[in-house]
Amino acid sequence: MIDPALIEELKQIVDDGKVLTDVSSLEAYGKDWTKHFAPAPSAIVFPRTIEQVQAIVRWANEYQISLVPSGGRTGLSAAAVAANGEVVVSFDNMNKILSFNEFDRTAVCQAGVVTQQLQEFAEEQGLYYPVDFASAGSSQIGGNIGTNAGGIKVIRYGMTRNWVAGLKVVTGSGEILELNKDLIKNATGYDLRQLFIGAEGTLGFVVEATMRLDRAPKNLTAMVLGAPDFDSIMPVLHAFQSKLDLTAFEFFSDKALDKVLARGDVPAPFATECPFYALLEFEAVSEEVAEQALATFEHCVEQGWVLDGVMSQSEQQLENLWKLREYISETIAHWTPYKNDISVTVSQVPAFLKDIDQIVEQNYPDFEVVWFGHIGDGNLHLNILKPDAMEKDEFFAKCATVNQWVFETVEKYNGSISAEHGVGMTKRDYLHYSRSAAEIQLMQAVKAVFDPNGIMNPGKIFAPDAN
Amino acid sequence: MIDPALIEELKQIVDDGKVLTDVSSLEAYGKDWTKHFAPAPSAIVFPRTIEQVQAIVRWANEYQISLVPSGGRTGLSAAAVAANGEVVVSFDNMNKILSFNEFDRTAVCQAGVVTQQLQEFAEEQGLYYPVDFASAGSSQIGGNIGTNAGGIKVIRYGMTRNWVAGLKVVTGSGEILELNKDLIKNATGYDLRQLFIGAEGTLGFVVEATMRLDRAPKNLTAMVLGAPDFDSIMPVLHAFQSKLDLTAFEFFSDKALDKVLARGDVPAPFATECPFYALLEFEAVSEEVAEQALATFEHCVEQGWVLDGVMSQSEQQLENLWKLREYISETIAHWTPYKNDISVTVSQVPAFLKDIDQIVEQNYPDFEVVWFGHIGDGNLHLNILKPDAMEKDEFFAKCATVNQWVFETVEKYNGSISAEHGVGMTKRDYLHYSRSAAEIQLMQAVKAVFDPNGIMNPGKIFAPDAN
Repeated sequence: MIDPALIEELKQIVDDGKVLTDVSSLEAYGKDWTKHFAPAPSAIVFPRTIEQVQAIVRWANEYQISLVPSGGRTGLSAAAVAANGEVVVSFDNMNKILSFNEFDRTAVCQAGVVTQQLQEFAEEQGLYYPVDFASAGSSQIGGNIGTNAGGIKVIRYGMTRNWVAGLKVVTGSGEILELNKDLIKNATGYDLRQLFIGAEGTLGFVVEATMRLDRAPKNLTAMVLGAPDFDSIMPVLHAFQSKLDLTAFEFFSDKALDKVLARGDVPAPFATECPFYALLEFEAVSEEVAEQALATFEHCVEQGWVLDGVMSQSEQQLENLWKLREYISETIAHWTPYKNDISVTVSQVPAFLKDIDQIVEQNYPDFEVVWFGHIGDGNLHLNILKPDAMEKDEFFAKCATVNQWVFETVEKYNGSISAEHGVGMTKRDYLHYSRSAAEIQLMQAVKAVFDPNGIMNPGKIFAPDAN
Repeated sequence: MIDPALIEELKQIVDDGKVLTDVSSLEAYGKDWTKHFAPAPSAIVFPRTIEQVQAIVRWANEYQISLVPSGGRTGLSAAAVAANGEVVVSFDNMNKILSFNEFDRTAVCQAGVVTQQLQEFAEEQGLYYPVDFASAGSSQIGGNIGTNAGGIKVIRYGMTRNWVAGLKVVTGSGEILELNKDLIKNATGYDLRQLFIGAEGTLGFVVEATMRLDRAPKNLTAMVLGAPDFDSIMPVLHAFQSKLDLTAFEFFSDKALDKVLARGDVPAPFATECPFYALLEFEAVSEEVAEQALATFEHCVEQGWVLDGVMSQSEQQLENLWKLREYISETIAHWTPYKNDISVTVSQVPAFLKDIDQIVEQNYPDFEVVWFGHIGDGNLHLNILKPDAMEKDEFFAKCATVNQWVFETVEKYNGSISAEHGVGMTKRDYLHYSRSAAEIQLMQAVKAVFDPNGIMNPGKIFAPDAN
């Protein structure tokens, strides 16, 4: 742990009472939504200004103290976990939307602005912040940028990266950089902004971000379609995508749907039981667009790709259809599932999914595999449910083996071992399945440029000895 | 110049006859569309495969020979000029579209694929490659990526960056990297692909790129609107943007229009003479959308922001309206204009433009300033015409002073000294007006990571002594 005299020095940097070292704060601020690592930070510090963040980073450099950035702590890769006596820098007190420009359609956000806060702010301006996902009520913009958060609307709007007009960062050596200055076109050398997006706080801290807002979507309309097999989902996606600008294209299996319907609080989409379902969404901006969607649906039925389907006719029906997808994660939590967030190119999804199913079935026939995900962008959430009769320890030991197979299959398909949850600590040992040795070496050299003393979130993305 | 024995060695790397050293080849391949620097390369080499490119880079590292990448040579910043005995690596023989995937909507392109070739290929597939600009008939994908090319559809489709799903590059140290593997979601550490986009060949060579294609636009419709003053252009943009998804929003001044109309081959949009004009474009996907556009136009007239306007009713009319904008550059070439490509945030455009106008008018009242540009993304093309009576030398000497003022004003408005043409050699001495000293230092350190011997396009982006 850190010398108490140094903690006293840290207290001088920030406002009174803004360094916490009590056990419950250390416990609360030392972890994210992952549970594999015991939190063990030395202190939690709450800066209020960019200058305070800079002073903290300079202090840390002087005494070679490791810093961990902390946002909404909703991460799923332990990138914001402090397990080794680090000082946690929380952005909870930098949570204001500083300004809005209606002509640029941008909002300047401190790093601690909560995603939903920005979404609601956009709505108040008659605009829309389109990056949306389950933890939007707690996750912070700084954290979203750190993992380049994705979610359910990526097929239309892209990742968080697309919405960052400009960034203010404090680098690992304590420099304040204003990256890209909110410009749309700026061809003046390397776009360093892009490096900080998805860097999981290993290069420096994002302290302020200018986020772009979009036109509010009009008359969002969803369809749920049932398919006879997974292979049919692809031509369905293709057929709709060539006619409409989809705002979402999700999928889930019958096993996922059955469990959600068993809750009893959401109606079934239709009577026909199908092994796979697609949920798609679009803006029904005119009668013609809605008719186009129905004609495409009929075409899919004629081709045998779709067995049954339903289209929302009201806001309420739209919400109910979305619940079929959104409730899955929470519903299956009951079976303490093994989870993995992976991606391949869209066209490879069916073959990849079949391979994984086969591997699991051959080796662990008693395991129940539940698939769902953002198939329009190749992002699959693999969930394996613990058999009721099996002890947790045995289950997780077997899952460690499954993990290996999954990553080997990801590598075979040129996929990503982490589609949208980041690497953090949970996937750092598997990074080589997605990035070559040369790439990893170059990434580490880039880190050394921005963080020469290795104090920024060490042990994240790269294994600790590598820093 | 390079030892002839080394050139012999270079010849062994590539196919027979693929190293040229004759005067006319050196002259042709040693320059781009800029005319400030005399071409003086030592040799031109035409690799056919990635492995040949890698071998060239290794050869260059061994003998400390500088390499200059060469695409369509349409650049406007001298980033592809070889003025110091470098070896030019031309991608003319790597010009194939290697594959297409209809489900991923991607095309794998060798670096030398011409922009228009990709546009036409996309069209054949019923799809669309949306990055478009004047030199699309000659510019190559590798060069587009090197400068992160923009053009006329950025307001809707973004820059080239948005369309690069994956990149194969050969780094300055001769490593082949496969960056991002064409995935949509990939949260596995730093996105090195982004660094190579816009790097002007200073980190390595882009040798292959997987480009995304989009749904083909439907029933593109243009409006040309005349405004009483420049300040009115902003609320017009705002009004249309809140109702429609614009695919373009360009502007030009009466001076620009008058010169185009004087050619006699394009009809005037309407009789009313206005000091400023906006050209906007959208997909009239339904009657309702076209009606919305007309209603917005009427609203703008009522508010006094628009004096007159016209909407295209046919493909032919659409083309004619676009010619009013597209012919400007070629038309004013007659006056050997001083040109500058700069950007500020959209909301700052009116104030910025007024400042520049005032500076020029105060100092050089006989200079005619012609403005046009992609105002929907803050990108202005400033053109100053040479007075007929003034000698070229005198004009360009005075323009050097104007240049300084322009960049100072860009800095004051937090803008970019190069919106979409890159830095190359023409703007490297002005880089500090857009990037801080700390940023420039970090960029140079990043370059050293990928190009430790400084052989990749030295003297571009950064001044030569800095490499």
